[in-house]
Amino acid sequence: MAGPAASVTLPDIQRPVAEGLALVTAELGRMITADVPLMQEVNRHLLRMKGKLFRPTLLLLTHEACGQDDPRAMSLAAIVELIHLATLVHDDSVDHSVLRRGMPTVNSLFSHQVSVIMGDYLYSRAIVELARLDDLEPIRVLARVTDTMTVGEMRQLAAYDALDFDEQQYELLCRSKTASLFAAACEVGALRAAPAQRRAARRYGDALGMAFQITDDLLDYTEGEAVTGKPSGLDLKEHKVTLPLIAVLGRLGRGERERVEALFREAAPAGGQVADVVRLVELTGGLDYARERAAAFAAEAEGALDDLPASAAREALRDAIVYAVERRR
Amino acid sequence: MAGPAASVTLPDIQRPVAEGLALVTAELGRMITADVPLMQEVNRHLLRMKGKLFRPTLLLLTHEACGQDDPRAMSLAAIVELIHLATLVHDDSVDHSVLRRGMPTVNSLFSHQVSVIMGDYLYSRAIVELARLDDLEPIRVLARVTDTMTVGEMRQLAAYDALDFDEQQYELLCRSKTASLFAAACEVGALRAAPAQRRAARRYGDALGMAFQITDDLLDYTEGEAVTGKPSGLDLKEHKVTLPLIAVLGRLGRGERERVEALFREAAPAGGQVADVVRLVELTGGLDYARERAAAFAAEAEGALDDLPASAAREALRDAIVYAVERRR
Repeated sequence: MAGPAASVTLPDIQRPVAEGLALVTAELGRMITADVPLMQEVNRHLLRMKGKLFRPTLLLLTHEACGQDDPRAMSLAAIVELIHLATLVHDDSVDHSVLRRGMPTVNSLFSHQVSVIMGDYLYSRAIVELARLDDLEPIRVLARVTDTMTVGEMRQLAAYDALDFDEQQYELLCRSKTASLFAAACEVGALRAAPAQRRAARRYGDALGMAFQITDDLLDYTEGEAVTGKPSGLDLKEHKVTLPLIAVLGRLGRGERERVEALFREAAPAGGQVADVVRLVELTGGLDYARERAAAFAAEAEGALDDLPASAAREALRDAIVYAVERRR
Repeated sequence: MAGPAASVTLPDIQRPVAEGLALVTAELGRMITADVPLMQEVNRHLLRMKGKLFRPTLLLLTHEACGQDDPRAMSLAAIVELIHLATLVHDDSVDHSVLRRGMPTVNSLFSHQVSVIMGDYLYSRAIVELARLDDLEPIRVLARVTDTMTVGEMRQLAAYDALDFDEQQYELLCRSKTASLFAAACEVGALRAAPAQRRAARRYGDALGMAFQITDDLLDYTEGEAVTGKPSGLDLKEHKVTLPLIAVLGRLGRGERERVEALFREAAPAGGQVADVVRLVELTGGLDYARERAAAFAAEAEGALDDLPASAAREALRDAIVYAVERRR
């Protein structure tokens, strides 16, 4: 893949839209202002963990790369982050997760009740703000995302035998839980551009989201808690089957397969057991295969950028691909 | 209050829009069609417990009473029911409720996870279907409802001392959790009517919703499980303070007050203790006061109907008021 090396940082990528992102942060604060003290507390917590505004960055960069200059882009970018926050809050509640980006989740810090209602609140706020913008088109694009996301999650819940999960189902899940919002953010950024550019922006976002999610699942195998903010091997511990394991399941010997199955029979697998399967997946080429797939999606995202005119924003979108696959957390 | 006596039944009210309601049921089925078997199972369960389509009935009646005849009204009515179902599913999950209308809740029959995701799914579907209708106005009206509802629920969660709950806070809660959706359903029905009629429709729905919710809370004091599908005195058991108790709290003697406080100190109050407070509230006039307030809101709803032209649909809306305050469940 062409483009700069691992040294790409998020602030580099965000430089062309730094002013816009400051407005997005302000918009986000305005959108979730509430006069109930408990909600203020949750909102403060959410804004602290709001992270890197990666999706708003993609929206603003696509917007600029397509030669657009609509002030509503800042509101749309904040709305995309709001939808992202809403899904994080409900995901953590569904998974009973304790940590997210190294910080306590809403369900662990407050309660299950608070997280269900706050997720609903954040999503409702997103729709109210969307309606204020007087444009049906972004509502159409973004409503489809949460629809797709929830169907994907239900499909995951309904999968009884985790070890039957195949690569096609895995990609479907990545697409629904991650790539759909990336694709929508980029498409919304390009909403008023020529149809070919709008399609290219969407294709870029979709492929980038796939590369991003595969990399996320790889990091669960390769990085420790200090880096990712989550314990290493957490997915295996929670019996979540991701690409590195799927890649090798078919080619394991009988004894190796049995070690994996033993872990999946254990309600709470021990650290040693998890570390053993992590090593097994690495030695049998699972990590390499997942890296190849991430690189293939990264190349697809690069290809989509060829349909946008050359600009600093387009180069930043190119850097975002490198960032997505080479980041450490 | 004028109008027919207690003999008003729901089918009577629904007669002028019976054909439309059949289409609403079909629309609802179409909207939640999913190809994931687990979702089909949950959807079948939801459609079985979908109840009486009271909100869609109000939307269609208001629509007709305002002289409108837009086929989209059927889709809007189905969407309103979808939003209602989404809030029920999350409410039951938040409250860990086991029964709803005498049937097991989604959280009890399936799981907490399924109910969080399914609630999100139903609401997402509602927004996708709203966007399909190519009209921002109903999105504006309905997005505000869920916003209001979630703020109301957070306010309730944040109330530390249940016995400090006063009538004003109680009305705010009724308005956010019930009247807001009634008002929106009626306003959406009258969306293309003259502004005065649209305002009247909204006022009618708001007052009707208040009367409906107060009656609901009264039924918790007066009716047994066989009738309401919920154990009697459940609100008290769960430390929920509603109008009958609020009405008398200020005028209880010290000994009486202590009996109430004892119940609220008990994590799981015994049946006898609940029955004792129910009797106390009745004897000190709490039920009478709540009935008076319900009647006052019913009169307000009647008054709003004067701004709509005479029609069979308007008479059915009048009957709906009687039904709301005189129903047994």
